[in-house]
Amino acid sequence: MSDAREVILVCHPQAERVAAWIARLAPLLPAFRLAAIDEAVAPERVRYAVVWKPSPGALAPFTALRAVVSLGAGIDHIPADALPAHRPPILRTTGEALTQRMREYVCLQVLRHHRDMPQLAAAQRRAEWQPQVTPPAPERRVGVMGLGLLGSAAATSLAALGFDTRGWARSPHQLGGVTTFAGDELNDFLAGCEILVCLLPLTDATRDILDHRLLARLPRGAGLINAGRGEHLVEADLLDALASARLSHATLDVFRQEPLPADHPFWHHPQITVTPHIASMIDAPTGSRLVAENIRRFEQELADSAAAGGAV
Amino acid sequence: MSDAREVILVCHPQAERVAAWIARLAPLLPAFRLAAIDEAVAPERVRYAVVWKPSPGALAPFTALRAVVSLGAGIDHIPADALPAHRPPILRTTGEALTQRMREYVCLQVLRHHRDMPQLAAAQRRAEWQPQVTPPAPERRVGVMGLGLLGSAAATSLAALGFDTRGWARSPHQLGGVTTFAGDELNDFLAGCEILVCLLPLTDATRDILDHRLLARLPRGAGLINAGRGEHLVEADLLDALASARLSHATLDVFRQEPLPADHPFWHHPQITVTPHIASMIDAPTGSRLVAENIRRFEQELADSAAAGGAV
Repeated sequence: MSDAREVILVCHPQAERVAAWIARLAPLLPAFRLAAIDEAVAPERVRYAVVWKPSPGALAPFTALRAVVSLGAGIDHIPADALPAHRPPILRTTGEALTQRMREYVCLQVLRHHRDMPQLAAAQRRAEWQPQVTPPAPERRVGVMGLGLLGSAAATSLAALGFDTRGWARSPHQLGGVTTFAGDELNDFLAGCEILVCLLPLTDATRDILDHRLLARLPRGAGLINAGRGEHLVEADLLDALASARLSHATLDVFRQEPLPADHPFWHHPQITVTPHIASMIDAPTGSRLVAENIRRFEQELADSAAAGGAV
Repeated sequence: MSDAREVILVCHPQAERVAAWIARLAPLLPAFRLAAIDEAVAPERVRYAVVWKPSPGALAPFTALRAVVSLGAGIDHIPADALPAHRPPILRTTGEALTQRMREYVCLQVLRHHRDMPQLAAAQRRAEWQPQVTPPAPERRVGVMGLGLLGSAAATSLAALGFDTRGWARSPHQLGGVTTFAGDELNDFLAGCEILVCLLPLTDATRDILDHRLLARLPRGAGLINAGRGEHLVEADLLDALASARLSHATLDVFRQEPLPADHPFWHHPQITVTPHIASMIDAPTGSRLVAENIRRFEQELADSAAAGGAV
């Protein structure tokens, strides 16, 4: 029995994730057939592709795609040459679950730096009882670079935990409890930031922004948390800053090459915490509803615009 | 030149802490001379003792003590046999700085459990990229035992981070965003708590409360955080619960013997995080103002009550 429904493809580098997304999305989008990108599917029947890090050319055969759904708030993981020639729109997945996860990750990692957990863990490995006294949060200045949905949520949560919180973005923002800076006020923003969090979007203006010049503006012994994109960070400059004690520790969730290669020096660096791009990961159980709504909303907009066109 | 002032003694097991407290307290309490407990001081001139973990008999010679100031919110670190026979009152040190530190510690450790940092750290040591998917905070039930100043602050901060937060105490409490339980509702409180935080005071009723019966009420794979007192936890029952995977991980800040002996099995247990009683540590830079205020307030009360007595 052939299935007459149009098709939504799922494209993800991990096969078990593909299966999880298909299992969750199928009941939410019964008008469509869900398929893995490597299944045999008539290309002209594919209307949507739900993707994370598609490889070059992966979507090229699907010339009837209405839209591509990014499994994340960013779209820079989708290379232009992955798309078919008619360049369908890319829908970003956003929602409270993603914001919530980033809030958790940033609060967790800032608190880890603040309370010196890397030193405490090292002391535990040596079975040494070494109580450290760290200042309370109101005496700790934390800076958040990037004040989009995720950055704003992270900054306000840090302020609620009591940190002396500041934020910087290209354009001016107002945020309760957060001192904000914009554009060329970057150096003012960096002054005294003992913990710096990068949540910037990746653009030509922000690529390589975490370099030796920027790190030199931070107070000696500062901590760095990068949950933006790997391309924000100049890796050699970070290693230099750690070696010279300019920085005390870095926590990195994103990397120029992901997965981080097994022989990369970050893995075994005692002053670097590596997490595998999980800060604001979207997973099938919590994300399928957002993706399904995204597709239904887009279908509705297409229908509305067709109706409006018909009414002219 | 002899110093005619009355004396405040500082008593702390670490000599450098004694020096730090004296240096901070002296300018705040100029009417008194500050001295270390092992200095040669005429015992009858000692009016206050500022103490952390005094040894048995330590304060016995000071028969003119007006009060003992505990360097902490609890007083159970002061054994009854440390005090002189006239049993002067014990003043607890509380204040926003202590509450703030406990809020930080609890949020940090709950987030560490929630986002599975121990597993991620183990994966980093193996240079393995293993993204884990954990539920967002609203789908994670966290329980706080003990709803005093510190417990209430911790619970409301966890709720603000989005956790499904519940609290239990001997007597009923009302807390915004927190589902509360009292007295014999303990088993109802424990049901479904994936992360359990102990911030109870140490009393005969709470000693050994974290035992195999209580741990068996938690869902399989739960996490335990103890920042109350070491005597709340039955250590052998914890080791059993970790071995049987009843619990996945425990984070302990307090121990039956402190410092934790170098040969204690907790130090090198892969499922136990040890921190050296720093959750809500009070240190001289932030705590001296609180201690000085405490002493001044007590002096004022003595003066007021003497004046009232005189006026009768």
